[in-house]
Amino acid sequence: MKKFNIAKSRRLRSTPYSSRIEDQGVTSYTIYNHMLLPASFGSLEDSYHHLKEHVQVWDVAAERQVEISGKDSSKLVQLMTCRDLSKSKIGRCYYCPIIDENGGMINDPVVLKIKEDKWWISIADSDVILFAKGLAIGKGFNVKITEPDVNIMAVQGPKSFGLMEKIFGKKIAEMKFFGFDYFEFGGDKHLIARSGWSKQGGYEIYVENTKSGLQLYDKLFEDGKEFNVKPGCPNLIERIESGLLSYGNDMDNSDNPYECGLDKYVNIDSNVDFLGKEELIKYNKNGIKKKLMGVKIDIDNISISETIKIFDSNNKAIGELRSGVYSPHFKKVIGIAMLKDLNWDKSSKFKININGKSANGTVCDLPFI
Amino acid sequence: MKKFNIAKSRRLRSTPYSSRIEDQGVTSYTIYNHMLLPASFGSLEDSYHHLKEHVQVWDVAAERQVEISGKDSSKLVQLMTCRDLSKSKIGRCYYCPIIDENGGMINDPVVLKIKEDKWWISIADSDVILFAKGLAIGKGFNVKITEPDVNIMAVQGPKSFGLMEKIFGKKIAEMKFFGFDYFEFGGDKHLIARSGWSKQGGYEIYVENTKSGLQLYDKLFEDGKEFNVKPGCPNLIERIESGLLSYGNDMDNSDNPYECGLDKYVNIDSNVDFLGKEELIKYNKNGIKKKLMGVKIDIDNISISETIKIFDSNNKAIGELRSGVYSPHFKKVIGIAMLKDLNWDKSSKFKININGKSANGTVCDLPFI
Repeated sequence: MKKFNIAKSRRLRSTPYSSRIEDQGVTSYTIYNHMLLPASFGSLEDSYHHLKEHVQVWDVAAERQVEISGKDSSKLVQLMTCRDLSKSKIGRCYYCPIIDENGGMINDPVVLKIKEDKWWISIADSDVILFAKGLAIGKGFNVKITEPDVNIMAVQGPKSFGLMEKIFGKKIAEMKFFGFDYFEFGGDKHLIARSGWSKQGGYEIYVENTKSGLQLYDKLFEDGKEFNVKPGCPNLIERIESGLLSYGNDMDNSDNPYECGLDKYVNIDSNVDFLGKEELIKYNKNGIKKKLMGVKIDIDNISISETIKIFDSNNKAIGELRSGVYSPHFKKVIGIAMLKDLNWDKSSKFKININGKSANGTVCDLPFI
Repeated sequence: MKKFNIAKSRRLRSTPYSSRIEDQGVTSYTIYNHMLLPASFGSLEDSYHHLKEHVQVWDVAAERQVEISGKDSSKLVQLMTCRDLSKSKIGRCYYCPIIDENGGMINDPVVLKIKEDKWWISIADSDVILFAKGLAIGKGFNVKITEPDVNIMAVQGPKSFGLMEKIFGKKIAEMKFFGFDYFEFGGDKHLIARSGWSKQGGYEIYVENTKSGLQLYDKLFEDGKEFNVKPGCPNLIERIESGLLSYGNDMDNSDNPYECGLDKYVNIDSNVDFLGKEELIKYNKNGIKKKLMGVKIDIDNISISETIKIFDSNNKAIGELRSGVYSPHFKKVIGIAMLKDLNWDKSSKFKININGKSANGTVCDLPFI
């Protein structure tokens, strides 16, 4: 696979941590919400093993916040998601598919209820702020919509709990999954959630004060020595094994939440109003015609920059591979595919052409592990 | 300046031309509308000189189209831009600032009137489709909004006219600037506009049929030999010298069209309704407090990944540099800066700190050439 440089410019925004991670050895970037998001520090596989055993600090400032506040803020947030937020609580995070009037996915953020009339939508890679602004203007809602200067760093891995307790004390170790609270460091209060884009456990620190945030970044590496801390980033191997979906990779606006396996976040039986509700009721009644599934392929490497068609034994196209990576655990390539045939026999094989060579694969459920 | 690889994935979409330009020697990419946009083929300076003398073919598929059709399409397109489109004609392109309810820039596309009730908004780097969808839903407009599978290739440079006439005949040479029409190639009709993101002249081919589009791509290189054709891309040196603004680099949602020097596209005296009109009337009456200007800096190289502050002789911050590049023409760095002091004396010097070293600069008008 050929390698290409990224041409930096202000439009691909740096983060407050960029100069630090460049000193620490970041080797590749992706772009996410018009911002630099580290994609590797040397070997993906070394980083994967380290993440599963120790603790990493990640620059995930590219997870931008859309702040919605004001009298109609709850109404607007609810309008955008099929998840019923009527019983949501301050201090909790909610994974929420954002959908359009046809039920097509627009984003899959984590929504934080900050106050009764203030929300942060912690977004995947699409300009949700423009959708929110358009809706608010069109509906005449009384809301204020901004992108605050919040730059998340994540602390991920099994030893993240020990490291964070060392810095913030026992209270942070007792916080429940998808809870958030405020913790003092460097004279500032930082919102910290027990969350993150891995299944290895950890925290996300929503840094509003950059100065003390950078001090905290350095402190995590100082105090983290005994925990074997390293810089890291969302790891392609770990996230696919864990079945963490990536908007824009595994799903896009042409897919609805049922097709993405997000059924439990679709509350069509609730009383709340949201876009696409009628369409989703129809999909629920009539059934869907494609679905995201896991696949295993008998090859030892892959690099995906566009979808790759999947064929059955009669050479009929039955779907497309959207993400994939070599898994050291399964000792083959694993991936996430949108399959058209829902009656696919999980024990039978499919064919796929990778770099001009035919390979065999099998379908399986998500997550892999 | 350290170099970093781009981590490819489906989310950073390839274009139909990607495999061709990778064979032809593209060396760096930027990301634009979630898609790969080539940023260099080897030396920027060599490519700059070539573009000014010969002809280049560019993969600019990342200039995505937002198609708005239906009964209320004209109303929606007009609502989003401060440019009066009431007298717009089919077959013409219009440069249109898209602004929000505060007059803040959201994008600066070229709008093509395809039919009375069908428009293409050829966008810069932000998800205008989400803004349009939000507005249409909120207002209850009768429109259809899609991103059609259109992948633009540009033919740019002084010899583009000769090359295109060789392939398409005299009619294409007679087309006026910002006009468009349909031209036959490979059995398909292709929309071709006399436009492009350089000041060297040329065309943009809006390829809807990928198969004949790729044949046309190859034909341009075959027939282009006598014109010294080369693969290329929007050139940072040429675009800054020409004063072509880049959304996300030179301007963003915190700037209004007056501050960006786009006064002639702000039709506050027209009868048409658009978002932010009242705010723009106020700005026009009360004046603006910052403005995009050209700057020249006495150094011989620069690489910008975030804004750099500009100081006056009393060390007072008077603005920020947003784009910059070494210009072989001026034999110094030139750039585009947002300056807070509009009474800045154009003959006086400012100070700027680049890579830890202080440098001197002067302010000037845009474009440079």
